Amino acid sequence: MFALTILGSNSAIPTYGRNPTAQILQTQNDSFLIDCGEGTQLQIAKYKIKLSKLSYIFISHLHGDHYFGLIGLISSMSLLNRTQPLHIFGPAILKDIIDIQLKAADVVLSYELNFYAIEKEGVLTTTSKISIEAFKVNHRIETFGFIFSEIKKPRSILSDKAIEQNIPAAFYEQLQNGEDYIDKNGKTISNESVTTAAPKGKKYVYCADTLFDTSIVEFIQDADLLYHETTYLKDQEEKAKNRFHSTTVQAGQIAKLSNAKQLIIGHYSSKYETTHDFLEETKEIFNNTVLAIEGCCYKI
Amino acid sequence: MFALTILGSNSAIPTYGRNPTAQILQTQNDSFLIDCGEGTQLQIAKYKIKLSKLSYIFISHLHGDHYFGLIGLISSMSLLNRTQPLHIFGPAILKDIIDIQLKAADVVLSYELNFYAIEKEGVLTTTSKISIEAFKVNHRIETFGFIFSEIKKPRSILSDKAIEQNIPAAFYEQLQNGEDYIDKNGKTISNESVTTAAPKGKKYVYCADTLFDTSIVEFIQDADLLYHETTYLKDQEEKAKNRFHSTTVQAGQIAKLSNAKQLIIGHYSSKYETTHDFLEETKEIFNNTVLAIEGCCYKI
Repeated sequence: MFALTILGSNSAIPTYGRNPTAQILQTQNDSFLIDCGEGTQLQIAKYKIKLSKLSYIFISHLHGDHYFGLIGLISSMSLLNRTQPLHIFGPAILKDIIDIQLKAADVVLSYELNFYAIEKEGVLTTTSKISIEAFKVNHRIETFGFIFSEIKKPRSILSDKAIEQNIPAAFYEQLQNGEDYIDKNGKTISNESVTTAAPKGKKYVYCADTLFDTSIVEFIQDADLLYHETTYLKDQEEKAKNRFHSTTVQAGQIAKLSNAKQLIIGHYSSKYETTHDFLEETKEIFNNTVLAIEGCCYKI
Repeated sequence: MFALTILGSNSAIPTYGRNPTAQILQTQNDSFLIDCGEGTQLQIAKYKIKLSKLSYIFISHLHGDHYFGLIGLISSMSLLNRTQPLHIFGPAILKDIIDIQLKAADVVLSYELNFYAIEKEGVLTTTSKISIEAFKVNHRIETFGFIFSEIKKPRSILSDKAIEQNIPAAFYEQLQNGEDYIDKNGKTISNESVTTAAPKGKKYVYCADTLFDTSIVEFIQDADLLYHETTYLKDQEEKAKNRFHSTTVQAGQIAKLSNAKQLIIGHYSSKYETTHDFLEETKEIFNNTVLAIEGCCYKI
């Protein structure tokens, strides 16, 4: 199970009490920070997120509202005497941006910082329970979205039935992996008759900043929760396109086309004082939609 | 006259609702931002400081709590379609830090950004009314303090007396500059007999981050308001020294030695929940002391 907490929901300039983009995805063992706009460390403190569980940070692209808070967070973790390693995934030049600032301050971090340049689509890393994959979205500069998937668990053995069929225990691992058993007389015992499938792993998809582009749909199928930006309301479709952003209606369409279970929208333009219309408009297309609200935690 | 508004008063990590260092010094025509910790743009918005009057930013040194908010502020000014030039003074490498981030975002600012590397002590710039001077303080990395002085106004001519002494109007500008007049008979008319001194210009001194170092005293004499850091209370003198910071008592001593009219203290260590003891302890040494409190405006 995942829990997604929104730390920042605005685009570009912080306004109306809304902060630039940052989200934290928590599992029982790990936390994954997705983007890190200015002030993210303050939001983390405000919402009492434990830094000790945060070992992975993913930066989608290098527009400031998605990463200007990173260097402050990195520095504060060191001032707080963090010892466990931190893994950061982002555009290659981000490493230079971090390094020049650490050098200017003559700082040696208290912990190991491992940087991984995101250069192409595909799996970025896997923990024992989660796999994280990058996919390209369509923005003014190179930008990646991220897919967080619980790793498929092995099938459960129905032990009564396996014993009844005289399947040796040495073959149980293969049964868990879905193989059929062939006994000494050449008879096939089908896997389905002696195992049950493990519950399907959950999937969270973060589409970052993107214009409406249905080519992403094939990569993001069947998300339990899909985050898609809605920088603008539907009457600003032209502006959204010119600025490589999306509208409410477009986010709803992507959710529908990709067969998402639920849609969460955010990255509201700084000009909107309230966000209620975003919800209304998106729900017209895709009913199971929620607003990204800072401090709120969404269970997946 | 100056008005100093505190935007951030904490050191290192933002805690207890206190932000990293930033101050804004306002005159009738201009605003001068002094340091720019993370979140400064939010503080500027919160306290309704007009960005249109802000044309000068001074960065004392490159520890993150003094400048991590700069790139966000620069970017937001561009998103807000600023057109007038912005002048930034700071350590040379700060230009590279700004440039690499603008390049990564593929951003061309909407306004002219002029960067001036602070490489030595002395006058950095003068406006029509203010002169800004840098002086070295003693910190772990190269750090400058700043002196903001109202430019000395010309002397006022006592016209009755000047006429009585037959001083030609063509000589009035020299009178305003303090010269004596010698008439055609060789008689000296003393300047003091026909002019009065203009009121003395105000002086604000910002000592940035520094350990207790009396060598700065000669540069900062007679401030109307002196800002000196008090990262620690007096019982932490050893720790202050090791970390190139100062205590309450030490700030009071610098104010006394430099003949300041008033002292303002700040840059409180993140570990202190309240700041009242800072005021008590400093006042024991230098009575006319005030605490730097965010959002408060101090008239000079």
